[in-house]
Amino acid sequence: MSSVRELAAKVREAATRLTLLTTEEKNDALMKIADALEDNRGMILARNREDVERERAGGMSESLLDRLSLNEKRISAMAEGVRQVAALPDPVGEIIDETTRPNGLRIRRVRVPVGVIGMIFEARPNVSVDSASLAIKAGSGIILRGSRSAAVSNRALVDVMKEALGGTAVPPDSIGLSASASHEDVEEMMRLRGMIDLIIPRGGAGLIRNVCENSRVPVLETGVGNCHVYIHADADPDMAERIAVNAKCSRPSVCNAAETLLFHRDRTDILPRICRALGDRGVTIHGCPVTRSLFPEAVEATEEDFFREYLSLDIAVKVVDSLEDAIAHVRKYSSGHTEAIVAKDPAAAEKFMREIDSACVNHNASTRFTDGFEFGFGAEIGISTQKLHARGPVGLRELTSYKYLVTGDGQVRE
Amino acid sequence: MSSVRELAAKVREAATRLTLLTTEEKNDALMKIADALEDNRGMILARNREDVERERAGGMSESLLDRLSLNEKRISAMAEGVRQVAALPDPVGEIIDETTRPNGLRIRRVRVPVGVIGMIFEARPNVSVDSASLAIKAGSGIILRGSRSAAVSNRALVDVMKEALGGTAVPPDSIGLSASASHEDVEEMMRLRGMIDLIIPRGGAGLIRNVCENSRVPVLETGVGNCHVYIHADADPDMAERIAVNAKCSRPSVCNAAETLLFHRDRTDILPRICRALGDRGVTIHGCPVTRSLFPEAVEATEEDFFREYLSLDIAVKVVDSLEDAIAHVRKYSSGHTEAIVAKDPAAAEKFMREIDSACVNHNASTRFTDGFEFGFGAEIGISTQKLHARGPVGLRELTSYKYLVTGDGQVRE
Repeated sequence: MSSVRELAAKVREAATRLTLLTTEEKNDALMKIADALEDNRGMILARNREDVERERAGGMSESLLDRLSLNEKRISAMAEGVRQVAALPDPVGEIIDETTRPNGLRIRRVRVPVGVIGMIFEARPNVSVDSASLAIKAGSGIILRGSRSAAVSNRALVDVMKEALGGTAVPPDSIGLSASASHEDVEEMMRLRGMIDLIIPRGGAGLIRNVCENSRVPVLETGVGNCHVYIHADADPDMAERIAVNAKCSRPSVCNAAETLLFHRDRTDILPRICRALGDRGVTIHGCPVTRSLFPEAVEATEEDFFREYLSLDIAVKVVDSLEDAIAHVRKYSSGHTEAIVAKDPAAAEKFMREIDSACVNHNASTRFTDGFEFGFGAEIGISTQKLHARGPVGLRELTSYKYLVTGDGQVRE
Repeated sequence: MSSVRELAAKVREAATRLTLLTTEEKNDALMKIADALEDNRGMILARNREDVERERAGGMSESLLDRLSLNEKRISAMAEGVRQVAALPDPVGEIIDETTRPNGLRIRRVRVPVGVIGMIFEARPNVSVDSASLAIKAGSGIILRGSRSAAVSNRALVDVMKEALGGTAVPPDSIGLSASASHEDVEEMMRLRGMIDLIIPRGGAGLIRNVCENSRVPVLETGVGNCHVYIHADADPDMAERIAVNAKCSRPSVCNAAETLLFHRDRTDILPRICRALGDRGVTIHGCPVTRSLFPEAVEATEEDFFREYLSLDIAVKVVDSLEDAIAHVRKYSSGHTEAIVAKDPAAAEKFMREIDSACVNHNASTRFTDGFEFGFGAEIGISTQKLHARGPVGLRELTSYKYLVTGDGQVRE
């Protein structure tokens, strides 16, 4: 038996007990995890330094080293995140709907845990803690497969969490960590249909594509965001600038940042001003021919630019002839994450919101709001860009399934 | 380009228009389909006879020939089914929930079509009509890949439906049929991630397993039902008999029929009586040693019997020592479809319903109620035994996705 298969069997066994715990039992365990993370801060930081020093010597870039590095503040933030998850309402046991049939059968649909979640992620070790705490609250076991670069840090964090669970009702084996952090472990996890109920890949586009295309276990596809901001003919100039700048510049490296700006041809009067505002913040404009004629500093946008998720201080800019053309452009190039229209006309906004088939469609609001916290979910594990099971921010509710409870007094079917 | 890929491109293009139609436009198209099926009855029956005669000459069994055969009554039933789908509420556009955030953003979650559904099915040609009408009502295109044995019948039904759509707002290309009905078409459909949004296999366990294990397109796993009836220590004897007989005998060939009967050891007084009632209806009892000592006509149950979905007049019977043992047995052997407990004690029923992780768990009601019509969905496309997206009966609601509409007045994120 492979080590991941053995691990999955252990986590599955633990999860059958975790499923049945009360909210109080799960919350108590989460509070103990939070305390243990803070109590073991020194050890965790020492282990994390091993990863950071090895990777620095190996030539890892400063931005990746930053993602990998923990410090006192980041550990406190992790612990605080776990306490926030404890404070959230428990989705498990919620009666989603209820009906009584003419034959007297009472049918309740009740929220239940999914079982075992497989999390495949890169770089940031805090994902171990964030996703384990969400899984526990949602009543599911979790198998973590982090990157090799963070292997020592992830091991330390998982050890601390498992030890903290020792004195609680949550079985320590509810959390499992792939020991080798190898590619073979990813392959094996993807084959464990029936032992893992759901795999969530978090990381680069290559990782996500590999998992989506090869997993026999159902996948929650997250994260690729080629988000658009469309400035309609009647858009308020100040609002358009504010939203475009916020959507691109407030955090360019995340999936809800804007990657393409579309201008209606009747609102190109504000194109130079908005491109300048972006340029002042270091953004390179990749423009269509009309954009370049109005804003000569723009570089040429290729067809490929409109498909790109830059995740950097770059943006593609195109002038379109109509609302319909804007919609057609988004439908063709978007990754289905988040698109925004800036417009006064409610009919134009309604048409855009109705005809765009993305997880989130915003009217007069930045694309940056697509986020579990901003949506009031209290936590999130990613943004789903698929249409099945969960779409948009994935919080506790989206990590659950449901079952039907049917109560009768002896009914049989004719 | 393969023929299925071309077909999928056409259906996808049609589906983007179908998505935006009103309820009235979709219902009008469905009513036209229903009329056209009845108007073309003669042609459909003649084409169906080609399939039936060829397969009879090829040695197909009578029960399969019965599934394949159409007649006047079955065509009327199909047309009636389509009219019933037209009469159902439209799930598309429903506001599932709505919230206003402290920053003033209004966030609505709205039900939307999934896009393109791939349906892979065996034998019965009525599945073409049933699933196409559900897909249209749910706003999605559909690619049908039926079996070779029903290829001429399916072609006739699809031609009639597509021609009926000619005069309606629903694009005829919303329905596509795999022309070759080949295995290669199944393989190709499973690769069309991004062009097909959801594949639903309907048929034998082999087909379903192949699709679940090999599809890159998300799958809705349906149908395998190893359903249990557990007779608790305090079960009412008459109710226990009525439910056991109904669950096994009312339609043995379907997935919600019972395949295993468990008796608490303190209620074995009624074991002979219930086994006899089943035997009187032609059921072979596959019993554990205690069962055989109490009911000598029983044949020996092997370990494998407890895993089997007989779909025939056979049932496995086992005596267990406790409620906990009954739960453990179900958790080990069940396919996660439907289980029932017959008990007076509400605490025993609650424990059983809470601890069993199946799509439907019934108290004092036959397993045969797991059905979209019995649940009040008005229609169904199968019973999901997976935990993601949809579980239990799959009706119109379960064939949809959702998106978020976010309305602001210029909000940007800090």
